[in-house]
Amino acid sequence: MDHAAATPLDPRVFEAMQPYLAGQFANPSSLYGAARETRQAVEAARHTLANILGAKPTEIVFTSGGTEGDNLAVQGVLRAHPGAHWVTSSIEHDAILGCVEPLMREGHEATIVPVEPNGLVEVAAIERAVTDQTVLISVMMANNEIGAIQPIAELAKLVAKVRADRSQRGLDRPLYLHTDAAQAAGYLDLHVARLRVDLLSLNGSKLYGPKGAGLLYVRQGTRLEPLMYGGGQERGRRSGTENVAGAVGLAKALELAAAARESESHRLAGLRDELIRRLTAAIPHTTLNGDPKRRLPNNLSLTIPGAEGEAMVLYLDNHGVQASTGSACSTGSLDPSHVLLALGRTPAEANASLRLTLGRATDEAAIDHVVKVLPPIIVRLREL
Amino acid sequence: MDHAAATPLDPRVFEAMQPYLAGQFANPSSLYGAARETRQAVEAARHTLANILGAKPTEIVFTSGGTEGDNLAVQGVLRAHPGAHWVTSSIEHDAILGCVEPLMREGHEATIVPVEPNGLVEVAAIERAVTDQTVLISVMMANNEIGAIQPIAELAKLVAKVRADRSQRGLDRPLYLHTDAAQAAGYLDLHVARLRVDLLSLNGSKLYGPKGAGLLYVRQGTRLEPLMYGGGQERGRRSGTENVAGAVGLAKALELAAAARESESHRLAGLRDELIRRLTAAIPHTTLNGDPKRRLPNNLSLTIPGAEGEAMVLYLDNHGVQASTGSACSTGSLDPSHVLLALGRTPAEANASLRLTLGRATDEAAIDHVVKVLPPIIVRLREL
Repeated sequence: MDHAAATPLDPRVFEAMQPYLAGQFANPSSLYGAARETRQAVEAARHTLANILGAKPTEIVFTSGGTEGDNLAVQGVLRAHPGAHWVTSSIEHDAILGCVEPLMREGHEATIVPVEPNGLVEVAAIERAVTDQTVLISVMMANNEIGAIQPIAELAKLVAKVRADRSQRGLDRPLYLHTDAAQAAGYLDLHVARLRVDLLSLNGSKLYGPKGAGLLYVRQGTRLEPLMYGGGQERGRRSGTENVAGAVGLAKALELAAAARESESHRLAGLRDELIRRLTAAIPHTTLNGDPKRRLPNNLSLTIPGAEGEAMVLYLDNHGVQASTGSACSTGSLDPSHVLLALGRTPAEANASLRLTLGRATDEAAIDHVVKVLPPIIVRLREL
Repeated sequence: MDHAAATPLDPRVFEAMQPYLAGQFANPSSLYGAARETRQAVEAARHTLANILGAKPTEIVFTSGGTEGDNLAVQGVLRAHPGAHWVTSSIEHDAILGCVEPLMREGHEATIVPVEPNGLVEVAAIERAVTDQTVLISVMMANNEIGAIQPIAELAKLVAKVRADRSQRGLDRPLYLHTDAAQAAGYLDLHVARLRVDLLSLNGSKLYGPKGAGLLYVRQGTRLEPLMYGGGQERGRRSGTENVAGAVGLAKALELAAAARESESHRLAGLRDELIRRLTAAIPHTTLNGDPKRRLPNNLSLTIPGAEGEAMVLYLDNHGVQASTGSACSTGSLDPSHVLLALGRTPAEANASLRLTLGRATDEAAIDHVVKVLPPIIVRLREL
């Protein structure tokens, strides 16, 4: 019940990776035959990923994961445009929001746009934040804590409108749209040509692929300064010897996720709705965080007043259920979730929250089990 | 014969990684029992690595490889000290030299100190380059192309002297010493307390460990700005979900390499010297690049006038020998090696160079084979 934090490596992904963990180890940049084979493996993975994303292979940059992809998108675009401005939302992952202050020290301003109480970014609010200095809008495709699906298509329309207006006024400043699709992968359409995004980051470990592997899609023509310099791999956008097994695993993982996307989304949305219905019925005063409709099919985030989040997680673990208070990404932090606060929750409410995220392993029996064990835990915690 | 470009994953390393590729996938930042297990695996790996390096576990920062470690050291220290100066050598890896220009645009000056014709950095030349603005000296432990072992202990003495002088003059600017130990791992002593370095980067894929895994040792008290922001993993110095299998594999790889270091260095130095002797005897006008004594036990770099490097590599591959023209890290680059040029080689000489790097798989029979096949190849190439 914590698939948003980590997913198991699909055995078929592991199988695809295995040759590159065992025998085939050549550095893809070497000149001999064995290296051409690892190079081909990386390029075949790139082609597979590009096909699924509706991108060109040259637009795929392999990274070490979601955090690197987000940082490369934001720092990369801003550093390529000195003194520029960017716009993001108050419920982004810390990999985005963490860039605000260091980039400010380098002379780049940011506007952090608040969200509606249902966790959705209002396109008009983003529009009001855009100035003639803005080069980047970064809004996640779906939120990691509350699953809220953001209006990326509408934001793409806004970007097109701003570009047309700038062009008409002879203003030469570009405007790019980045979306963090780490949580959306496997559930939403990631086709960048349909989405009309310029940058999109993905993380292998959230889609039954390997940890330490991800990608950033970078639309051709997008000016981007690398985070790391060196041997010039990934067309100079990400130096470092390619993680061959990681790239192969990421491609296999996205391939499998894309094939199962519609059926799995349908299946999980049903289980999720059932879980929301039964839990809110069984536990008085429970409310759902985030929009009930525009949310990932695998996510439910509940605020259960009188029960502390960490305690709920530990009691649930004792009953064989893995859950989360919010994001697993804010290590050891005792601060209330910035996402829940951004929805207007009080710190006390934010700390009384529980995230359950379903996945391939979740079946009807798992739902029954949670519905059986959670209500008595809440009764006990409320007594304490 | 190209172990400096890539090493196979040791089966014992693969075995150590396997549980974290298969069943144990929890995000180490989650709160439940399964996550405590992956957290413990990461921390046990950190302890193992710290022990071998003579460091504290909190001083180990896991990275995605050597390039990231180098970039984090250089960009990290410089960005934490606005408007500062740093000193490096002309034969560093591109992961170091590639930082010069972008950091200059951010207001950081660099001095690139030339090396002696034998590939060694002269400590006095580094000393002359140090100013009151200098915060970092970055010199690799051993060069990736010519194997030259740099005087790190002497540089540490210089750093201590500069620090004492600054302290006496009431100058509050720190001076740190970084060394890229990617190629040295497995052959040289990496004990940071004995070396007295402040930062040291390692790469798993060069020491029979996994690709996409490395570390940066950061001495306590060293001010360092992260490359990536986010969940605050690695004590805020490197955000991103930990690559658990990568960390475990890196620790196992360094453990095995450290245990075999002395015997393997002795064995390979013998084979290397034999190979140098027999090849220079069999191929007229062949010269060794880099100091003959102060070099890695597994490295020989030859300039063979009249034979083009890429052709030598392809002909050797045809005879089952994997070799390199220089570094595998400068993807598809046709420029002559900056390292060989820095030794005073002409572009033509640099392009007539061959790097052979021995490793665990190299035995007497492999030496015999190279000595048998290379001389006729050179005759043929010189005819062409």
